Amino acid sequence: VSALSLHPDRFFPAEPAVQAIARELFTRVETLPILSPHGHTDPRWFASDAPFEDATSLFLWPDHYVIRLLYSQGLALEALGIGDPNADRRAVWRLFAANYHLFRGTPSRLWLDHVFAAVFGFTDRLSDETADHYFDTIAAGLAKPEFRPRALFKRFGIEKIATTEGALDTLADHDLLARDWPGRVITTYRPDDVIDADKAEFAANLERFGALTGENTATWAGYLAAHRVRRAFFRQRGATATDHGPVTPATANLSAAEGQALLDRLLRGRREAGDGELFRAAMLTEMAKMACDDGMTMQIHPGSFRNHNAALFGKFGPHLGADIPFAVNYVQQLKPLLDAVGNRADLTIILFTLDETNYARELAPLAGHYPCLKLGPAWWFHDSPEGMLRFRRQTTETAGFYNTVGFNDDTRAFLSIPARHDLARRVDAAYLAELVATHRLDLDEAQELIADLAYNLPKAAYKL
Amino acid sequence: VSALSLHPDRFFPAEPAVQAIARELFTRVETLPILSPHGHTDPRWFASDAPFEDATSLFLWPDHYVIRLLYSQGLALEALGIGDPNADRRAVWRLFAANYHLFRGTPSRLWLDHVFAAVFGFTDRLSDETADHYFDTIAAGLAKPEFRPRALFKRFGIEKIATTEGALDTLADHDLLARDWPGRVITTYRPDDVIDADKAEFAANLERFGALTGENTATWAGYLAAHRVRRAFFRQRGATATDHGPVTPATANLSAAEGQALLDRLLRGRREAGDGELFRAAMLTEMAKMACDDGMTMQIHPGSFRNHNAALFGKFGPHLGADIPFAVNYVQQLKPLLDAVGNRADLTIILFTLDETNYARELAPLAGHYPCLKLGPAWWFHDSPEGMLRFRRQTTETAGFYNTVGFNDDTRAFLSIPARHDLARRVDAAYLAELVATHRLDLDEAQELIADLAYNLPKAAYKL
Amino acid sequence: VSALSLHPDRFFPAEPAVQAIARELFTRVETLPILSPHGHTDPRWFASDAPFEDATSLFLWPDHYVIRLLYSQGLALEALGIGDPNADRRAVWRLFAANYHLFRGTPSRLWLDHVFAAVFGFTDRLSDETADHYFDTIAAGLAKPEFRPRALFKRFGIEKIATTEGALDTLADHDLLARDWPGRVITTYRPDDVIDADKAEFAANLERFGALTGENTATWAGYLAAHRVRRAFFRQRGATATDHGPVTPATANLSAAEGQALLDRLLRGRREAGDGELFRAAMLTEMAKMACDDGMTMQIHPGSFRNHNAALFGKFGPHLGADIPFAVNYVQQLKPLLDAVGNRADLTIILFTLDETNYARELAPLAGHYPCLKLGPAWWFHDSPEGMLRFRRQTTETAGFYNTVGFNDDTRAFLSIPARHDLARRVDAAYLAELVATHRLDLDEAQELIADLAYNLPKAAYKL
Repeated sequence: VSALSLHPDRFFPAEPAVQAIARELFTRVETLPILSPHGHTDPRWFASDAPFEDATSLFLWPDHYVIRLLYSQGLALEALGIGDPNADRRAVWRLFAANYHLFRGTPSRLWLDHVFAAVFGFTDRLSDETADHYFDTIAAGLAKPEFRPRALFKRFGIEKIATTEGALDTLADHDLLARDWPGRVITTYRPDDVIDADKAEFAANLERFGALTGENTATWAGYLAAHRVRRAFFRQRGATATDHGPVTPATANLSAAEGQALLDRLLRGRREAGDGELFRAAMLTEMAKMACDDGMTMQIHPGSFRNHNAALFGKFGPHLGADIPFAVNYVQQLKPLLDAVGNRADLTIILFTLDETNYARELAPLAGHYPCLKLGPAWWFHDSPEGMLRFRRQTTETAGFYNTVGFNDDTRAFLSIPARHDLARRVDAAYLAELVATHRLDLDEAQELIADLAYNLPKAAYKL
Repeated sequence: VSALSLHPDRFFPAEPAVQAIARELFTRVETLPILSPHGHTDPRWFASDAPFEDATSLFLWPDHYVIRLLYSQGLALEALGIGDPNADRRAVWRLFAANYHLFRGTPSRLWLDHVFAAVFGFTDRLSDETADHYFDTIAAGLAKPEFRPRALFKRFGIEKIATTEGALDTLADHDLLARDWPGRVITTYRPDDVIDADKAEFAANLERFGALTGENTATWAGYLAAHRVRRAFFRQRGATATDHGPVTPATANLSAAEGQALLDRLLRGRREAGDGELFRAAMLTEMAKMACDDGMTMQIHPGSFRNHNAALFGKFGPHLGADIPFAVNYVQQLKPLLDAVGNRADLTIILFTLDETNYARELAPLAGHYPCLKLGPAWWFHDSPEGMLRFRRQTTETAGFYNTVGFNDDTRAFLSIPARHDLARRVDAAYLAELVATHRLDLDEAQELIADLAYNLPKAAYKL
Repeated sequence: VSALSLHPDRFFPAEPAVQAIARELFTRVETLPILSPHGHTDPRWFASDAPFEDATSLFLWPDHYVIRLLYSQGLALEALGIGDPNADRRAVWRLFAANYHLFRGTPSRLWLDHVFAAVFGFTDRLSDETADHYFDTIAAGLAKPEFRPRALFKRFGIEKIATTEGALDTLADHDLLARDWPGRVITTYRPDDVIDADKAEFAANLERFGALTGENTATWAGYLAAHRVRRAFFRQRGATATDHGPVTPATANLSAAEGQALLDRLLRGRREAGDGELFRAAMLTEMAKMACDDGMTMQIHPGSFRNHNAALFGKFGPHLGADIPFAVNYVQQLKPLLDAVGNRADLTIILFTLDETNYARELAPLAGHYPCLKLGPAWWFHDSPEGMLRFRRQTTETAGFYNTVGFNDDTRAFLSIPARHDLARRVDAAYLAELVATHRLDLDEAQELIADLAYNLPKAAYKL
């Protein structure tokens, strides 16, 4: 059995002088409240405040990072109990524990160890030997009131968290929350379900969209009006932002006649090659125009080939770790949107990428010029020590710090939220310390920046 | 008010042993003369030797790096006085000073601080509090003889500088200089104005090109002859190099008949899609062939989407920071040129890129094979501590040091030239020190290399 | 004359605490046997055990890294004796020695110095002054029994080495070896010669392929059967793996009818654009299917523009350093193969890339999901200190360590094999030490990992 502990200087540079600067900077923000402006926690957790069940359903099953890596090493999804709530959860946990070495060097390992040590107080590393001890201790903990969602929320020092809901969501949980626990959990408008015309349920979704809003979504004007209605509805449930997950960052700026013609082709079975992409492209621009009117911050998360593994998708559905990034182009594809609203200083569009080649080549130059553009933090596969450092190294010199927006944990793994913010703050402290130690930045400026990155920038960018 | 000072160990690695090696290496080249073989200073400055006006027109207005970042943060170009020489320059300067924090972590900040401290002797950091002190001190300084262009040129230790002029330029300033201040300021032949057929003024420019040279530029042979005439004219004004800024690095090798047919299509209103690109591509190869004859070094700077912001370009023109890099391909696109002249060891073609993915993948392998190819230094957005380190780390192992050509400051910000060369020499010292400290290079070799990188390689590559 | 020595801490981080960890880790694997599961040594060397000739034919002529860099600096291939066994080898060696500074900062320099110091005992650096001393000492050494191939093999601590042979090779040398020196030198099935239909000799090769196997290779079924016959033949000579060098990683999954139609077009002069690519693509999938049956590990090495320099290729043939990488796409191109066999946990496909942008964007996510996929080590131009570090930094956080397969030396430079494995083990130790020093990994885990990376992972992935 090996010891588990969280070293106070973890993730700081090893060189003593730089480490000391990083530690000093980190100490200034270590206990700042957490702002989580983009993520995927379930509002029902906070609305119902029901206890979490057990280690397996809490840590394994919902975490596509963990499932992905176990699957890649030959563990069958059936053996992991995926899709089977009646699976032997302890047996699944033992299997995970026996394979914990697979996560060496990955951020999943860092997040999990943080949760195990900081939330549950474990002092031995997870392994086949400690698997049962972990499973039992976690079960015992989760049964206590202090491990209920709202208690953890407070313990974690979360000031505000945004969940993400589809355009057709009733937001019933947010309504409940507004009544008895207001101001903490807000929603985000993510209308991919009524924008992605390549999905089988698109036409049906548009009918429901019309029914929900009283608009005729078969007309371009009615369809856009329906979005306006739902944006207002989401804003009433606290939303300050929208989120968009198109395949590519393609944008288009259509006239009303072109929009109507496109919608007609999509809804009346006369669709042409590229129409799905064109509709998504047009809607990014329309969403940006609406954001100019209603002041919502807009997020764009493109570039993931969803459900790449066809056989697994057919059998188990999405969220199993088979989304694979691909090369994307922002400079040409964003131009129609930027031609339309790019010079608006009162608009905030936050760009994310899974293709790091864009950091220095396209994204930093774009955000370092257009008033409406900001850069979202290192996303998904890049939400890691090396990934976050690459983001800072490749964007700061062209875009500066003030065209970035702090950290997003972007997670459905609620218990890992403090771990993720801790990691992000430490890596930012490490980067700033390096700038100070090499005389590229003064210490007083780094002290101001570390608080900006941890708290002030996300607050401003997301209007929290 | 915070202190401003230039730390003697700035930009060196923080680890004491590596830092000591870097310092030792840098000391060997700190006072070497500056060779500036590629840049955009105005020859009129040196020809007239008139005093510079004030801080705002000297540091802000011509610097697209600075304007870009201020604009990205919502400052209107009108508020910055862009395009309005009658703007309240002190008010603009105050606005800049109040936003100086935006430049934290950017090379602009490093260059500006160096100028403020080393050229003007400021000991307080620029801020809203010190804005007027800066403005007045700079004004008082610029009025003195020792701040005139030629005095600064000598003070900066510049041995030779190349400006860049279009094919239609009269080079009158260079003629003046040749008479009373010879040998220091040379020109560079940059014929984009008579090669980029996608520009509205192309046909008119070709007429002027013909008139200037006495050649019939409506014929392929006459057009090429006109280039030869102008290349000779530029060489007489000291030019040792040409420079080319095509959209992409596409090259083509046309027969005379194909060239004539293409020129006909372009000049007689029968242009086909891709003809502009094809003409630029063909002319890169023709320029390389001419370079084999006249010995001029050829520079290629591709891959920038110029004036991406259409609205701003319409209102304010170019050079406002709205040029955005995009992904380019050298391995297929350069092949026609390389098939024609790639094996010439007496030809020097210096390749630049804004797409860093090409460093290790294409450019280092190409330059590490073809005798005619050399790699230009980290360019534009990448002319920064991290950018220069990425260049060395990603090119050296395949292309070595001797297929690179030292540093280009590539700037119109004359007063920042010492700052830029200081930074480049320090980063090279840092990189070499790391190689020495990890026993990948012997110290005596690093000592030789640091001087090669700072002085000998540019002298040889540009025949200075 | 400068001293030559191999520093015991070479390639470790300079920071003393990290360096100490790296040293401790490296010491654990320094003397482990060498597994060389992919490379290009000549089996005849070991079969005949004849002495190597001289420094020039041993170190220069076969090494395309060395020839490439010398050629790029203007040295003519004729002056280097390329293609002329009667060239004055001492004169060529002197020329190389006089240009040894060109290799500063390159891995070739590190490998060569290691061979010179560790194999031949030189204590002075190679230079024009020491050229003759080197040439004579090497000649004297090579004449001794302890410098014969088999003696060096034992001295180097090689446990097993794989050579690479084409589908039509008789494997006569391996037959000889099996008789009097069994178990050490195995072959690898590399059938590019009967798969690349864009090569002039394709049709003739298919006839020989049919003759060798007794199959009718003009039929799709017969052609596939011929591969099965040859795979079995290679397995009898120890092969545990196949290797494939397609232009791109394109894959396709054809029906028997589609395969037959394609083969018909290729063999009967009715080939359409893209047929060569389609045939290579289809055969990757067929090879993967056969690997499911016979258990051979499959390697894919795509993305090199072979013989980019047409003039040189015409005059001197391949292997002169004119192969240039280009951008490739794995996420879309591998999908047909992965749709067919991607979920097989009993299949091992090792992916390599020359386009490092794929490490974090595509390859680590793919290998971190699909059970059949593993990542080959940093390849060719990236087989270097910086290149290997980039590989680890950009793949580990998503794919972990256990989806990688240890080191490949991939070389025909037999004497450099210990140098290359030494370098790889040191860089892995450096990377792991950094993880330990920044508290991203525990020391006991790093101790286990360094042995896995050096020995256990290649043994498992290649079934050695």
